[in-house]
Amino acid sequence: MIIMGIDPGTAITGYGVVRMENNKSTVLGYGAIRTSSKDSTDHRLEAIYTGLQGLIAEFKPNCMAIEELFFNKNVGSALAVGQARGVAILSGALQKIPIAEYTPLQVKIAVTGYGRADKEQVAYMVRMLLGLTEIPKPDDITDALAVCLCHGYNANSWGRSI
Amino acid sequence: MIIMGIDPGTAITGYGVVRMENNKSTVLGYGAIRTSSKDSTDHRLEAIYTGLQGLIAEFKPNCMAIEELFFNKNVGSALAVGQARGVAILSGALQKIPIAEYTPLQVKIAVTGYGRADKEQVAYMVRMLLGLTEIPKPDDITDALAVCLCHGYNANSWGRSI
Repeated sequence: MIIMGIDPGTAITGYGVVRMENNKSTVLGYGAIRTSSKDSTDHRLEAIYTGLQGLIAEFKPNCMAIEELFFNKNVGSALAVGQARGVAILSGALQKIPIAEYTPLQVKIAVTGYGRADKEQVAYMVRMLLGLTEIPKPDDITDALAVCLCHGYNANSWGRSI
Repeated sequence: MIIMGIDPGTAITGYGVVRMENNKSTVLGYGAIRTSSKDSTDHRLEAIYTGLQGLIAEFKPNCMAIEELFFNKNVGSALAVGQARGVAILSGALQKIPIAEYTPLQVKIAVTGYGRADKEQVAYMVRMLLGLTEIPKPDDITDALAVCLCHGYNANSWGRSI
């Protein structure tokens, strides 16, 4: 099963692609789609959409995973992230790829076993679980890989009990 | 110039299409794309996208107009509206249709001359300015027509001084 995890944002949309089968997880790719704040919203959203369509064509994921977001920050950023998130979800939907949503709590428990794990702990475990030589930067990529793993564990009931 | 106004939302996306030229505005169509709360987010966003693509193909607008949103409500609804809004903006962007954004203040001033006009006043003026026999319901449609008019006045510097 090939899972594409996405951490959407207008400026940076992190992605990670992981193959999970037979108790083995292999990173196929990860990175970020970046857009410039000098560009207009419609062009930025189009760039995210086009970028994701390209990645879907390249990696042919069987499913996509995305974090459910809860904001205690300002409402403006929720709207902006929502726009990028809507485009990301649509990118999968139009290719008939099922999309799973997980809460931050579910992601943390899946990768660290601890619901109140901090960002560093999540990043550390993502690196360990995927056998990466270093923690991918920025955080958006690590988060995308974390939600991939979360979906893999939940979809397969694979390996770890959560 | 044919303008498509959009008031995006996950449950109801209102739209209005107005031809504005030579001091004359003609309503070409209006309505709402509705999705069921029983359906999944990805299917709902896909329905909004597919619906808008159909409307763009039907009405061939030269431009689109959408309200900038400011929330003082809860952040969850900002995220949900953001997702629908992102899909709406993308729908235009992928067809290379320019999209203009207006603040609620700009829309109110454009159609009523008064920045603190209430919903009823805006709805009344939309009906009068477009010569409709009744106020379209729900509000999402009236709001979509209002942002159409706002863009028409601003893009053309047509008729009214604002």
